[in-house]
Amino acid sequence: MDKRPAETGRMRDTSHDGFRNKLEAFLLTRGRPIWSFINEQRWLRGIVNRLIVNNAVLKAPTRPLPLSTMSGYASWASLTDRTWFSRYLPPKTMEGLPALQALAPLYVTKPGGPRLSQRSTLLFPSFAQWFTDGFLMTDGADRRRTSTNHQIDLSQVYGLNDKVQHALRLQSETAGRKGRLITEILDGEEWAPRLFDSEGNRDPRFGDVPDPLKLPIDLPPGRRASIFAFGGERANATIFTAAINTMFIREHNRLCQVIETANPAWDDERVFQTARNVNIVQLIKVVVEEYINHISPYWFKLLGDPTPSYKARWNRGNWIPVEFNLLYRWHSLIPETILWNGREKPMADMRFDNELLLIEGLEITLGAASGSSAWSIGLFNTAAMLRDVELASIQQGRDNQLASYNDYREVMQYPRISRFEQISGDPDVVETLKAIYGNVDKLEFFVGLFAEDLPERSAVPPLIGRMVALDAFSHALTNPLLSPYVYNEKTFTVEGMSSITQTACLSDIASRNLPGGGTGLHITMDNPAYDSVA
Amino acid sequence: MDKRPAETGRMRDTSHDGFRNKLEAFLLTRGRPIWSFINEQRWLRGIVNRLIVNNAVLKAPTRPLPLSTMSGYASWASLTDRTWFSRYLPPKTMEGLPALQALAPLYVTKPGGPRLSQRSTLLFPSFAQWFTDGFLMTDGADRRRTSTNHQIDLSQVYGLNDKVQHALRLQSETAGRKGRLITEILDGEEWAPRLFDSEGNRDPRFGDVPDPLKLPIDLPPGRRASIFAFGGERANATIFTAAINTMFIREHNRLCQVIETANPAWDDERVFQTARNVNIVQLIKVVVEEYINHISPYWFKLLGDPTPSYKARWNRGNWIPVEFNLLYRWHSLIPETILWNGREKPMADMRFDNELLLIEGLEITLGAASGSSAWSIGLFNTAAMLRDVELASIQQGRDNQLASYNDYREVMQYPRISRFEQISGDPDVVETLKAIYGNVDKLEFFVGLFAEDLPERSAVPPLIGRMVALDAFSHALTNPLLSPYVYNEKTFTVEGMSSITQTACLSDIASRNLPGGGTGLHITMDNPAYDSVA
Repeated sequence: MDKRPAETGRMRDTSHDGFRNKLEAFLLTRGRPIWSFINEQRWLRGIVNRLIVNNAVLKAPTRPLPLSTMSGYASWASLTDRTWFSRYLPPKTMEGLPALQALAPLYVTKPGGPRLSQRSTLLFPSFAQWFTDGFLMTDGADRRRTSTNHQIDLSQVYGLNDKVQHALRLQSETAGRKGRLITEILDGEEWAPRLFDSEGNRDPRFGDVPDPLKLPIDLPPGRRASIFAFGGERANATIFTAAINTMFIREHNRLCQVIETANPAWDDERVFQTARNVNIVQLIKVVVEEYINHISPYWFKLLGDPTPSYKARWNRGNWIPVEFNLLYRWHSLIPETILWNGREKPMADMRFDNELLLIEGLEITLGAASGSSAWSIGLFNTAAMLRDVELASIQQGRDNQLASYNDYREVMQYPRISRFEQISGDPDVVETLKAIYGNVDKLEFFVGLFAEDLPERSAVPPLIGRMVALDAFSHALTNPLLSPYVYNEKTFTVEGMSSITQTACLSDIASRNLPGGGTGLHITMDNPAYDSVA
Repeated sequence: MDKRPAETGRMRDTSHDGFRNKLEAFLLTRGRPIWSFINEQRWLRGIVNRLIVNNAVLKAPTRPLPLSTMSGYASWASLTDRTWFSRYLPPKTMEGLPALQALAPLYVTKPGGPRLSQRSTLLFPSFAQWFTDGFLMTDGADRRRTSTNHQIDLSQVYGLNDKVQHALRLQSETAGRKGRLITEILDGEEWAPRLFDSEGNRDPRFGDVPDPLKLPIDLPPGRRASIFAFGGERANATIFTAAINTMFIREHNRLCQVIETANPAWDDERVFQTARNVNIVQLIKVVVEEYINHISPYWFKLLGDPTPSYKARWNRGNWIPVEFNLLYRWHSLIPETILWNGREKPMADMRFDNELLLIEGLEITLGAASGSSAWSIGLFNTAAMLRDVELASIQQGRDNQLASYNDYREVMQYPRISRFEQISGDPDVVETLKAIYGNVDKLEFFVGLFAEDLPERSAVPPLIGRMVALDAFSHALTNPLLSPYVYNEKTFTVEGMSSITQTACLSDIASRNLPGGGTGLHITMDNPAYDSVA
């Protein structure tokens, strides 16, 4: 394992990385030709995939976890009431924590300017944001609670409940229109309907659709009128999340057309539900085969194959852990400027504003996300507009009495560290953390997660990577749609299964839903310059 | 396998029982000395228990089942909305079904009088009724829907939700009263509070407590005043279900006392929740170690050990199947007369009437259930008061478009039958079914279930036994309280775990909660005369 973070070139003390962790990293990140061979062997890659998936999930205690954020002890209530987050470690009183403001400098870029990610385009954090907004919801009134369905169910598109879903559906038994979501066509492109009219009043058809979260009250009427009626309350957050949501809405209606044509006798409801079944599974395939493979520093290409979960002891009903909710705050990946169709633009202008998307089209918007660099995840690298959000995340960890970074290393099978030098080779990180916390055992979970050096080829630091992988597999692969008696042509139709088979990445879905088929457009989370030099 | 039903002595055609089924029955119901030896070997019985439990559960497709009663196809809605029952087989249009009234003669006792069970006391169906009323609920307005929590959670005692629970709790931080359910002491015995006053008005403290289901409007004021404020809407149904519920309420308060004494610093909530944790697991132990062992014709004594579920591929979130809801209508076990403290009494008088329970005490009531014979389960053996209920159950099967008896044999790994003589050796059963249905493939699920002959030592017929066993294990043993990281002293306390260890049957719980400790009382589901002659 390379001990030098790409950014600083300095050495990290790897003595507490753990032998097994080092060995696994060595085996999985070296020997590219061997892995390329394995990736091509249909039979072998299935076995290796199962081994890697099981190894990833069993790095932590499996569900059901004994505790939720409801209380410090297990009870029938805490084991069944899913309006609370589950948690890996019991609440802990962390004595003598620094004042929140003392941590603010950790989220200011260094005088030399931001570090750009060599690995990821802006599509990566945009997809991460849009995807996780489908199941990571924090109750604004009590940050220990959640309104999540604890599942990958495309609630960004379909809403968290039936009321929202019905408001967004075109309920019609007319041939050629069955199962569709309400959309409108502008210049040959299909869009979700707008939530507000040109005067800023809410469209009464969408009374049950949630208010976009954190929508600025003083948004100019033009930007306000560009906000879509989306199922997810955060799907309008940026022009890029709105673009991805638009793509999945178009895909839903495309699937309806395919399914209805093959099954003309089916009613509106069945066409809708079957298209949704397919759409959800296609998302899961993208999550594993594009997104997780982008995050993973391994040369092995992980497969969107649910069978490793079928007999696994980790196949238990999903329940979002509060730690998972926090570790996904990848604010430092968001750049301050982006490249839009050849022009530099401030990312701040891309929030709650779909005007450019509507004018220039989905293709150019997805192209901008794929053509702009993300920033590199880590301390001293947060865009100015997001610094307060980082501090709010730390506060959320405190509200939930999370244990220390070292405690979480331990439960995730990393040895506890004894020196700050074991987290990072960056002297700025080490010295600042030393000055703030003094003792490594005092270091908070959220701060520690992002203080770690990025290993070579990794899109995220090691502890985050481990926790994301275990949750991604144990969450995504245990989806009821992928279960043994459900994952078949009866549930999806022959045409739906075929569409699933033909879906491995966002560009597959885009190519089916862009007016020109996305010809020549490279929709990608991987920085194209990176892979070739690695 | 004995082909002659105990009652008729005639031969059944066993040619379609299936080789593996016959072999399993042979191995498990013969060789009593071998099984007695195995039952005594701590190490060996654990292994055998795991084999038998796995074999029992894997007789049917495992969860998640693809369909619920919501629709004939799988959708995200149908896979997640648990207000519908799950189902083993898709809806089927059964052509040419007989009129409901044509089936009425099947539920009239023969001229020779009812057949008494040689195997079971009245405590067996009383416990079955009380136990299943905790999770088998049918929506009165739509018999395809349910309000169940799909779990063994002692909702009969604690209610289906927090509102009911809070109404029934004595919320108190006073030492010596923490965690308790509201009770009152009469002549040294502890009882749940009464729901109505002597004038028949509801006690306003219990506004959130559900109305007792099917409570006769014209109930005399004295009987009405004897109805308890119970969490379960059916727990007052008979004096015996009320007695069992009372016993579990007393046990809750006893556990609170034990837990509070050991943990004086704990608050009301924690004492309550921990007592509930223990009480639920004790019920599960009784279910497996007393109730299932009573049902099972095997000589092996099944263990209330959750570990066979820990790595099992059938360990998935429970979801009550509609077939399970129906097969549990064991009305024919209920006798028309019972033996109460030496006197014969009509069972009809025991409905919605707790006066005798309050006057003569819990011990005499449990004694009456243990000292009265149940009737034998089967056709031509239903008490007059329950005949309409049998027909309503058939209608419920039709409302849910259940497939045929033969279809269910097949999915439960019994060969389909080709002649009515393969169901029963009783010519009355065979001839009547022939006359009504003509073709065995037309035979309905509910009717067929109860038409089967009772094998020797069985409390229920084979197909019911198989379906009860698979659901009992896959439901009870996957309870979150029994899961690997929860089933420990942290969740239950040392004292609670010790109480769990000391609980294997109802008489264990009774002995801790009867004023005289139940000395000399034999609380049992097994007819004492039966086991010695078998």
